[in-house]
Amino acid sequence: MRTFRGLISVDEALRKINEHIRPVDGAETVDLPEALGRVLCNDVVADFDVPRRDRSAMDGYAVRASDTVGASTSKPVRLKLVGSVRIGQVPSVGVGVGECALVSTGCFIPEGADTVVMHENTDLEGSTVALYKPAYSGENVSVKGSDVRQGNVPLHKGDVLTPARIGVLASLGKAKVDVFRKPRIAIVPTGAEIRKVGSPIEEAEIYDINSHTLAAVVEENGGIAVVSDAVPDERNRLLSAIEANQRYDLTVIAGGSSVGERDLMYDVLSERGEVLFHGVQIKPGKPTVCAVIGGKILLGMPGHPTSCLSNAYIFLMPMIRKLARLPERRLTSVKARLSRRIVSTLGRKVFMTMRLRGGEAEPVFKESSAITSMADADGYTVIPENIDTVEKGDEIEVFLFY
Amino acid sequence: MRTFRGLISVDEALRKINEHIRPVDGAETVDLPEALGRVLCNDVVADFDVPRRDRSAMDGYAVRASDTVGASTSKPVRLKLVGSVRIGQVPSVGVGVGECALVSTGCFIPEGADTVVMHENTDLEGSTVALYKPAYSGENVSVKGSDVRQGNVPLHKGDVLTPARIGVLASLGKAKVDVFRKPRIAIVPTGAEIRKVGSPIEEAEIYDINSHTLAAVVEENGGIAVVSDAVPDERNRLLSAIEANQRYDLTVIAGGSSVGERDLMYDVLSERGEVLFHGVQIKPGKPTVCAVIGGKILLGMPGHPTSCLSNAYIFLMPMIRKLARLPERRLTSVKARLSRRIVSTLGRKVFMTMRLRGGEAEPVFKESSAITSMADADGYTVIPENIDTVEKGDEIEVFLFY
Repeated sequence: MRTFRGLISVDEALRKINEHIRPVDGAETVDLPEALGRVLCNDVVADFDVPRRDRSAMDGYAVRASDTVGASTSKPVRLKLVGSVRIGQVPSVGVGVGECALVSTGCFIPEGADTVVMHENTDLEGSTVALYKPAYSGENVSVKGSDVRQGNVPLHKGDVLTPARIGVLASLGKAKVDVFRKPRIAIVPTGAEIRKVGSPIEEAEIYDINSHTLAAVVEENGGIAVVSDAVPDERNRLLSAIEANQRYDLTVIAGGSSVGERDLMYDVLSERGEVLFHGVQIKPGKPTVCAVIGGKILLGMPGHPTSCLSNAYIFLMPMIRKLARLPERRLTSVKARLSRRIVSTLGRKVFMTMRLRGGEAEPVFKESSAITSMADADGYTVIPENIDTVEKGDEIEVFLFY
Repeated sequence: MRTFRGLISVDEALRKINEHIRPVDGAETVDLPEALGRVLCNDVVADFDVPRRDRSAMDGYAVRASDTVGASTSKPVRLKLVGSVRIGQVPSVGVGVGECALVSTGCFIPEGADTVVMHENTDLEGSTVALYKPAYSGENVSVKGSDVRQGNVPLHKGDVLTPARIGVLASLGKAKVDVFRKPRIAIVPTGAEIRKVGSPIEEAEIYDINSHTLAAVVEENGGIAVVSDAVPDERNRLLSAIEANQRYDLTVIAGGSSVGERDLMYDVLSERGEVLFHGVQIKPGKPTVCAVIGGKILLGMPGHPTSCLSNAYIFLMPMIRKLARLPERRLTSVKARLSRRIVSTLGRKVFMTMRLRGGEAEPVFKESSAITSMADADGYTVIPENIDTVEKGDEIEVFLFY
């Protein structure tokens, strides 16, 4: 009976994975409204200045700053109103000494003027405008190119497209944008007893849970999940499934990685490539195996739904994000006091699911095979390898699933 | 010249908004792979037990616990191997006194057996199995219904579908699921100078930025953005745009909310409905207006792209999430030291964008009209109303945009 050849630590497993993951290189062009969360694959160069000319940042009067010197409520400066600038049009008026022109926010500053006095600090008296405050040159003016200068690079290869960065692309008139393609993650459920959700089922068969939970994690982290039909734990079937999925960026095999009668995964993987590790100091999820075949990573996950999904958070999530060139995902966490003592397992990091109730964290783990161990939880805490007991009332950090 | 009638605080604005937002009621049916992040609109009832019968949680031998009493490495108990259980099939063997049957993880426990001894604690000797450890009844057995019991409700109306909860639906064979529909948010850009991204543009015109940034915030928070063509700031055009969008759950009007020549928004909104507030103690974004017309909320956002987007994070995001029945979004935050002194504005909450560099937070705000004030930032900090200066080296909390 073969057993695990020395478990490695979670950190060591992550380090090995990290060494072998190559971010995707391919690109695709998407329409701007589909670009949220995608990663730029080229620097973006501005074809023109934003704004194209000096614009007013306020509603008011465009004036020469030198005309406003000494203006005050008690001693207003009076300027002749020579016209108005229409929004969206190049000004047809110019502003000479002693003159002003009406502008609204976004209007080009007319020739001759160099500042804008806000409406609040003026009164219109027939064809004369009284100003109650002096203005410095450039006040309330958005200078040509001050947002983005022509020829400059406001966005860079590798930038993740947030709402604001989509705004920059819009300001430059880019209706389409080149981004790295999403990594395609093959998901291969194993087990002769596994049936597709929606199909009829015999009493001793079960519905495929892992493909759905893994696909959701893939999707949440910027990947595309490609789910296969379930493969029985037979050498040749596993080999051909691995073969068939070599075109994807990563293959995740759910089930068949533990040590026992049906354990073929290790043999199959080590025959075809290099096994990076088999067995991790984590609970649940110890029998996780990772290999490199033809430069592509294969991750063999335990078949128990909770082991599989908790390991997806620990190992698969960072893999997908690195492939997708997305920054590390920092799950939001909250501090809470434990509602009851928990006994952990020395020598293994323990992933423990928690429900939050009135500021308390309540352990909800049933068993690895029960998906409700995860679904009933708001998040999880991780108990380090060297802790065997956490007492009721101790403060823990809970990482939230949503 | 009309000015703002007393600015209200951000908290008060949020309170008023919260009072008037009604979560969506309509439902739709989606396929399981499209259900991630959606909100259940019905309780989910289990049609059968999961597992359907007692199953083995390990690879090993199904035995009677009473037969294992006293087993040890030095004094193994030997049982007769009477057969094996095939995964996915109802057992054809039974286990009598002094007998055992081979099982793998997930197999039904054969009649007569009540526990499973792991492979690691056994040796196969011809047709006899030596057990080196006693087992208690129920050990390594996943009991019928222990994950989900038939007739129970493992998921409830209002639950957000996380990967784990999608796993529960899969375990119950639900290929489709009823969820609340996504709220539809109308976005109406205003201004005669605004052109659609991708269309030709005159020198004094600008591309529509706000529709894109707002649509991205809507999408990130579980809504569907429905973007109109830009509407000039004319009374009748605004009125008909408001009318046309009354069928959506919320209307956001970008631009035209400030006090000045072009300010019609307040008049139009107060004529048609109840203005909840106009002018908020926040910077940028003071000239934000919110009204209720025919039971639907209208949010008038400042036209400057950074004011518009920063207010979208503060006001629009919680509105969409409440409409969508999603929990409050807790942006991930990090602590960092300020790279230089910042001077704030007393009496207003100041939303200040920050870039993180080597543990330091560097203010990147240029001006409200510059979208790069947001795009160059990793996140933002909020300076309270009663703080006028934050010194270099002070620790601040930066909320991340991604």
